[in-house]
Amino acid sequence: MAGSKYAYVRRFELPDNLLPGTHIVFRLDGHAFHKFSDEHAFAKPNDLRALELMDHAAQRLMEEHPDILLGFGESDEYSFLLKKSASLYNRRSAKIATLLTSFFTSAYVYHWRDHFPDTPLRYPPSFDGRLVLYPANQHVRDYFSWRQADTHINNMYNTTFWALVQQGGETTTQADATLKGTISSQKQEILFSRFGVNYSKVPERFRKGSVIVRDLISEPQPESNVEGDGGHTHSPRKKRKDKSKPQYTIQILHCDIIKDDFWLARQHLLED
Amino acid sequence: MAGSKYAYVRRFELPDNLLPGTHIVFRLDGHAFHKFSDEHAFAKPNDLRALELMDHAAQRLMEEHPDILLGFGESDEYSFLLKKSASLYNRRSAKIATLLTSFFTSAYVYHWRDHFPDTPLRYPPSFDGRLVLYPANQHVRDYFSWRQADTHINNMYNTTFWALVQQGGETTTQADATLKGTISSQKQEILFSRFGVNYSKVPERFRKGSVIVRDLISEPQPESNVEGDGGHTHSPRKKRKDKSKPQYTIQILHCDIIKDDFWLARQHLLED
Amino acid sequence: MAGSKYAYVRRFELPDNLLPGTHIVFRLDGHAFHKFSDEHAFAKPNDLRALELMDHAAQRLMEEHPDILLGFGESDEYSFLLKKSASLYNRRSAKIATLLTSFFTSAYVYHWRDHFPDTPLRYPPSFDGRLVLYPANQHVRDYFSWRQADTHINNMYNTTFWALVQQGGETTTQADATLKGTISSQKQEILFSRFGVNYSKVPERFRKGSVIVRDLISEPQPESNVEGDGGHTHSPRKKRKDKSKPQYTIQILHCDIIKDDFWLARQHLLED
Amino acid sequence: MAGSKYAYVRRFELPDNLLPGTHIVFRLDGHAFHKFSDEHAFAKPNDLRALELMDHAAQRLMEEHPDILLGFGESDEYSFLLKKSASLYNRRSAKIATLLTSFFTSAYVYHWRDHFPDTPLRYPPSFDGRLVLYPANQHVRDYFSWRQADTHINNMYNTTFWALVQQGGETTTQADATLKGTISSQKQEILFSRFGVNYSKVPERFRKGSVIVRDLISEPQPESNVEGDGGHTHSPRKKRKDKSKPQYTIQILHCDIIKDDFWLARQHLLED
Repeated sequence: MAGSKYAYVRRFELPDNLLPGTHIVFRLDGHAFHKFSDEHAFAKPNDLRALELMDHAAQRLMEEHPDILLGFGESDEYSFLLKKSASLYNRRSAKIATLLTSFFTSAYVYHWRDHFPDTPLRYPPSFDGRLVLYPANQHVRDYFSWRQADTHINNMYNTTFWALVQQGGETTTQADATLKGTISSQKQEILFSRFGVNYSKVPERFRKGSVIVRDLISEPQPESNVEGDGGHTHSPRKKRKDKSKPQYTIQILHCDIIKDDFWLARQHLLED
Repeated sequence: MAGSKYAYVRRFELPDNLLPGTHIVFRLDGHAFHKFSDEHAFAKPNDLRALELMDHAAQRLMEEHPDILLGFGESDEYSFLLKKSASLYNRRSAKIATLLTSFFTSAYVYHWRDHFPDTPLRYPPSFDGRLVLYPANQHVRDYFSWRQADTHINNMYNTTFWALVQQGGETTTQADATLKGTISSQKQEILFSRFGVNYSKVPERFRKGSVIVRDLISEPQPESNVEGDGGHTHSPRKKRKDKSKPQYTIQILHCDIIKDDFWLARQHLLED
Repeated sequence: MAGSKYAYVRRFELPDNLLPGTHIVFRLDGHAFHKFSDEHAFAKPNDLRALELMDHAAQRLMEEHPDILLGFGESDEYSFLLKKSASLYNRRSAKIATLLTSFFTSAYVYHWRDHFPDTPLRYPPSFDGRLVLYPANQHVRDYFSWRQADTHINNMYNTTFWALVQQGGETTTQADATLKGTISSQKQEILFSRFGVNYSKVPERFRKGSVIVRDLISEPQPESNVEGDGGHTHSPRKKRKDKSKPQYTIQILHCDIIKDDFWLARQHLLED
Repeated sequence: MAGSKYAYVRRFELPDNLLPGTHIVFRLDGHAFHKFSDEHAFAKPNDLRALELMDHAAQRLMEEHPDILLGFGESDEYSFLLKKSASLYNRRSAKIATLLTSFFTSAYVYHWRDHFPDTPLRYPPSFDGRLVLYPANQHVRDYFSWRQADTHINNMYNTTFWALVQQGGETTTQADATLKGTISSQKQEILFSRFGVNYSKVPERFRKGSVIVRDLISEPQPESNVEGDGGHTHSPRKKRKDKSKPQYTIQILHCDIIKDDFWLARQHLLED
């Protein structure tokens, strides 16, 4: 074979398999999205089109990869939970991380026009991704609580900040100074007293981020629970390819995932 | 801080920095491109539009990341050489691999219509990527020789195979059987005697793949060398952002990179 | 500083911290112990002095490192369980593996004469070690079951093999052939019918290996349980350095660790 | 097989092979040797017996492992260079690091009485070890220069410090204060003016550490070079097992390894 004398270079490709028996969390983040959102005139503090495009790409990714059970998105980042027993690509770390990041990116660009019909994409956006292993269920719960708590903190800040700028006439520097050192209740007070905004009425999508969950059809979830914690269900997509495979739906919610309710109603997320 | 009690989950993110002082090769491959090329009716054995789109995405990637000195592409794969001293993202492995894969994918989808104006993209394509470290210059030379030798072997096979099918009227099963066990000279003989094709006249792009090289302007390359080994230069793009930064061009060639000439004319590729 | 221009070489020392929240198992094996046991005329199939020396070294290691909760030894290998929350040396993999291997080796050579008063050590013996991470309690249970099942299989084979050779007058080649393809009950039958040996009367040390367990004094273990599963307690060593630190004993047992009893009586081994 | 249902636990043993084509440096350090040297009344600032025991253990290690070409020791640490093409244990990192550390430790304890005939070993000493990969020859040169420069700095400090204490009657606190902020020439001045010690006459073993080098017999080294850079050769041990294997000697020197001479005379150390 003409190439065989060079084939030794493959020996430098070292294995990078992930530890078995651990939950895999895949998180991706927009690369240089501050500039990207400016260039494409994203609305502040939240651009509904941009968030829905993120959700759309995430949903496509979960349809493509049945090992992903859950997604959580806020702003330009998304986290995904792969089931503990996932054996895709023999759990090779780089293979999984690059392929998931690639597909998400691809879907984001592919569906751009569906969500931004009047805003041409000016250049190719990109994302970086990483995998993190969590040995125990509690770690997974705490990981997603961490992200949703972060969503809350960021959205509270941004909502108040942009109210001060857009409605209060402050410069961004002034708004920064106004908010420096304030706690949550003070920001809510500013919003209410100066701008008549009741923060608890801000859409849950903005306050709680997006939750995409793969639910089994054969073991239907108590939907009342979901409503109970404030989730609004959008466009459940059913997948019924093959009777021998598990039947599931993929739903986008905007509900609390810190408290127990969400998880108690979906024990399949953590128990293989 | 509301989220602080969950922040311990970050401790599960383990460092993955690449060994310093080594050449980094990044290779990406199309995921499920057999199906993708069928669905989008790629011409066989080579689809010029698809190859040019790969080159275009690769070129965009090299414009985005100055640490990439060289690219080599064939079919649905591309390899890139990062300079030995590259310190992007503190040489964090997953960060680099996912970001480069993501940007390439994004550029591929973004520029699809430039190359396939009459073929709508039917679904989001994706790629996987990996990083391999090579300690010595000779390893890098042998890596790229390996890929170009592979290009040669694959193209010789595919060219003969599809001639047998498209012009010779064989089924794909028959063509497979006809070629089984044949060596290079026998395939050339089939091409010439049965189809009047002189393999050495097949375009170099198909026989040698695509070479994208970052050349320094301040140390201009002897272009006669490049012509000498059969390279055809397309659309050199100059980058002149800032006088304090190195000035370079990025060129797409289709030339031999196994022999010494290419490398002797570009010693900056291997010597930092 | 005279050496500072060379200090950059430290940047090649890459981090290798173990994933938090996982059980750490450390296993060491004698290196070239077939030759070592021949050179020092170890008794076959089991040399009590050699096994007690292994246990002694293991016990010293557990006294030295409070993070080790459990040890299991057979022949020239020993496995140790470190508690899930162990943070020794910041969970740096090479540091832990080399230090534990080194101390065990050191204690083995140091105590040689206590166990082999009439056999001078002819050359320095050595061991290799490795760390394996187990995310779940069941993995840990199965790991130690794997080792104890292995002990059983090996000892059954060796006991019968050496009876055939030492008492039956077979050559080692003949004994190998005699045992080829036999199952457990057939070996027991050979032992009993030809050599009058009731395998179940073979000392538990040989049939079950050695179990070294760190038990908390403040929560005394139900000793009846231990007796119940056949464990014989040797020389419990109490450690009472400091009232503020946990008080524990380290005991050597030769009992079943596959069934539940051992673990139910020692829930501190798996629950931090 | 009785144990087979547990054998899945082996899948948690992940590969850890070292990148091929790189120089491997193995460094080990005494664990808690401050206490160990106190307990065994090591002479200050240098205990000749302790240093010779370290050299002895290192020499045994190099005799055991032909892939080790060079050793450098000071105080309670030793570094070893394995050849770039070394393939021992398939370059598995933990296997190599633990085995080398174990053997060194074993030899240290085994030979203790040869060097400390009047000082019984009070407890088992231990060492930790680590592997570092260096891609280029210059990195290896700089690594060993780093260690020898460190030897010089430490020995200069310790020699002066203990002169102040042992001959100058200062307390250790006073000696610390006396030396604070002093540079090399000032320490030499203190030694000479107060204690009549010419630092350049301090034995090279203390000023330069120990160098153990594997020299090929078939390509005899120019011994005049070695003398020329001040090395004193002790007891060269020749190894002539097998005519088909390379013939070499292992020598202990106390010479400069920062300048070029040492390396020019031994090009086999860096060129496979």
